[in-house]
Amino acid sequence: MDIQRLVRELKVTNNSKIVMLVADGLGGLPIEPGGPTELEAAKTPNLDNLAKRGVQGLLYPVAPGITPGSGPGHLSLFGYDPIQHLIGRGALEATGVGFKLGPKDVAIRCNFCTLDAQGNITDRRAGRIPSEESAPLAISLRKVRIPGVEVFVEPVKEHRFVVVLRGEGLGGNVADTDPQKTGVPPLDPVAHDAASGRTAQVAKEFFLQALKILAGQPKANGLTMRGFSAAPVISSYEDVYGLRAAAIAVYPMYKGLAQLVGMTVVGKPGSLSEEIDVLEQAWNDYDFFFVHFKYTDSRGEDGNFAEKVRMVEQFDAIVPRVTALGPTVLVVTGDHSTPARLAGHSWHPVPTLLAADTCRPDGLTAFGEKYATCGGLGHFAGVNLMPLAMAHAGRLGKFGA
Amino acid sequence: MDIQRLVRELKVTNNSKIVMLVADGLGGLPIEPGGPTELEAAKTPNLDNLAKRGVQGLLYPVAPGITPGSGPGHLSLFGYDPIQHLIGRGALEATGVGFKLGPKDVAIRCNFCTLDAQGNITDRRAGRIPSEESAPLAISLRKVRIPGVEVFVEPVKEHRFVVVLRGEGLGGNVADTDPQKTGVPPLDPVAHDAASGRTAQVAKEFFLQALKILAGQPKANGLTMRGFSAAPVISSYEDVYGLRAAAIAVYPMYKGLAQLVGMTVVGKPGSLSEEIDVLEQAWNDYDFFFVHFKYTDSRGEDGNFAEKVRMVEQFDAIVPRVTALGPTVLVVTGDHSTPARLAGHSWHPVPTLLAADTCRPDGLTAFGEKYATCGGLGHFAGVNLMPLAMAHAGRLGKFGA
Repeated sequence: MDIQRLVRELKVTNNSKIVMLVADGLGGLPIEPGGPTELEAAKTPNLDNLAKRGVQGLLYPVAPGITPGSGPGHLSLFGYDPIQHLIGRGALEATGVGFKLGPKDVAIRCNFCTLDAQGNITDRRAGRIPSEESAPLAISLRKVRIPGVEVFVEPVKEHRFVVVLRGEGLGGNVADTDPQKTGVPPLDPVAHDAASGRTAQVAKEFFLQALKILAGQPKANGLTMRGFSAAPVISSYEDVYGLRAAAIAVYPMYKGLAQLVGMTVVGKPGSLSEEIDVLEQAWNDYDFFFVHFKYTDSRGEDGNFAEKVRMVEQFDAIVPRVTALGPTVLVVTGDHSTPARLAGHSWHPVPTLLAADTCRPDGLTAFGEKYATCGGLGHFAGVNLMPLAMAHAGRLGKFGA
Repeated sequence: MDIQRLVRELKVTNNSKIVMLVADGLGGLPIEPGGPTELEAAKTPNLDNLAKRGVQGLLYPVAPGITPGSGPGHLSLFGYDPIQHLIGRGALEATGVGFKLGPKDVAIRCNFCTLDAQGNITDRRAGRIPSEESAPLAISLRKVRIPGVEVFVEPVKEHRFVVVLRGEGLGGNVADTDPQKTGVPPLDPVAHDAASGRTAQVAKEFFLQALKILAGQPKANGLTMRGFSAAPVISSYEDVYGLRAAAIAVYPMYKGLAQLVGMTVVGKPGSLSEEIDVLEQAWNDYDFFFVHFKYTDSRGEDGNFAEKVRMVEQFDAIVPRVTALGPTVLVVTGDHSTPARLAGHSWHPVPTLLAADTCRPDGLTAFGEKYATCGGLGHFAGVNLMPLAMAHAGRLGKFGA
């Protein structure tokens, strides 16, 4: 049952506006037996008010038991089947620094590393070389020349950079060259299908020329390639939903994900408060706004329950500025759970809130996992969220006579 | 979305142990209007304690409205799509008596019947011939000789026995030969596809030789063939989950089902208490334990509410011995509902409990259908149960970056 195809056929345009606030890693677990989760412990008067007039439920980004990375998690929230549209790390890294991948591109996530005189790796991350030192080195690799192939190199952060090869006949199915240990050289790039043979050759040539350019560097005199991927083929938000979609985020990865589905990255906010400034400024120019808040996930990954609670409260505090703009539909959710107790992503479903005048209220008066368990949205798949938002926005016609 | 394929890719191994206790036909209905179900009526202090630290939900083995046999019910609990992997009655009968089916086998579920002098059936079940009389007759049919085909015959019970034909090019798609009435002869075996033509010929030859062997028998002088099936092709538990899986059951059918998915049948327990003895003895040798309890279904099929309640209480009583072993994940469920009020399997979803340290508690304090209706697992498909158990056991890596 291809819901997306159905939505594409039924979509209508109107003046409604949809806002999707994504608190990364929102879902959590109690830190003490019988205690509240982070979201339940946080003082969230604004989200609780939203809960009174909206509906809640528990969202499964991929499927019960499956722990998503942020890539699949967000694609699911955007309405794309996360298994069908698995985005490779190379493509994620490239779009994450704002590189617009095209159909002839292969993106490669790379690490600087340190090699000894024999060419063996002594440090897989080049001594955690700081960005100020590594960025010019990455840029210097743009000197690589390979006939028939355009080469792009972008610094990412510290030892990480991304290479994009653009040319005819470049498949993306090449194995990583990182041997995952020290004392041995980087592996040769090996193609895993016939369409990727040329890519492996080109990658090898890039590596050899790069070694020459980096020769003599004290830390970053080598590189490994840790994620080859062709550009994903994904229908745009405009095509699927008829929405002019804006993405407002601080971190490159989420801008990249949003761009992959055709959203326009708006503004250069450095904080949540600045993100809402951008939302206010861009309000008249778009129909859909994806606003991403990172720190609920970061503090969860730190294992810091009290700080994650604080981040939820910071998130709650900007809700009145959003509702003041008068969105037709306001969705509050997360791309996965990141319980502080587990200090990482988990498979537990994500508490999700949808507020609109057309909601059938579910009688709940606060927003949290235990309330969402019995909410009006039930327990549902992430890919159903956008169709629901579109319906409440009056943007889906009736199916069938 | 092939969840099983995803699980196969994401699986990791560790020292965790998963126990799945299956009370056959666990789900029920009230016997009086407004009264409790069997599970709710039963005194289940141990299951209620598990409920306090775990999560509950309602499990649909196949789909809402569909009443499963134990075959599909169990396959679903094991994580295999029950519609895609429909196991034929022949294959079930064979594995049920411990016969290990191979890829060149066709299993045929057979009934002894009584024929008159004209060869017409007078009794489709050979007068319910007792096992002591029919077993030697089944064994005598091993004298059948067919070139190019190995013939196996195993008694099952009373008029039932199973024939396995092993050879090249034997498809399993042959129609039943039981005319479903008396006064007419058994039908000729008819192939329903080109791959099964040889099987139909061989079955016909078996029938003719069997008639000669059985000639003169007062009750069982004929046979009908009521279920041809090739060996099912099913990935093993080891391949899918990376689990060394043990199956502990009293009845052959459930041992057979477990063997079909590659579990090792352990011990020869004659009772639930002996099953837990086996569990304790085998504890160090396996990662996953399927323990099957039959009598909740049997008493339900008898229409005996009070006795089904007693069986639930017997089941509850062994829970402390299981938790004492310290499983990482303990699942309590059933393969379908068998309400005493309906005296048979039903389509009602199955109350299911999962207990692990990583559960997000759902606030429920007792185990039963009405509690499970609002539990943290929601209402879910049976095939999602094993991925959930794997996640709580830490045996699934993250999906995507």
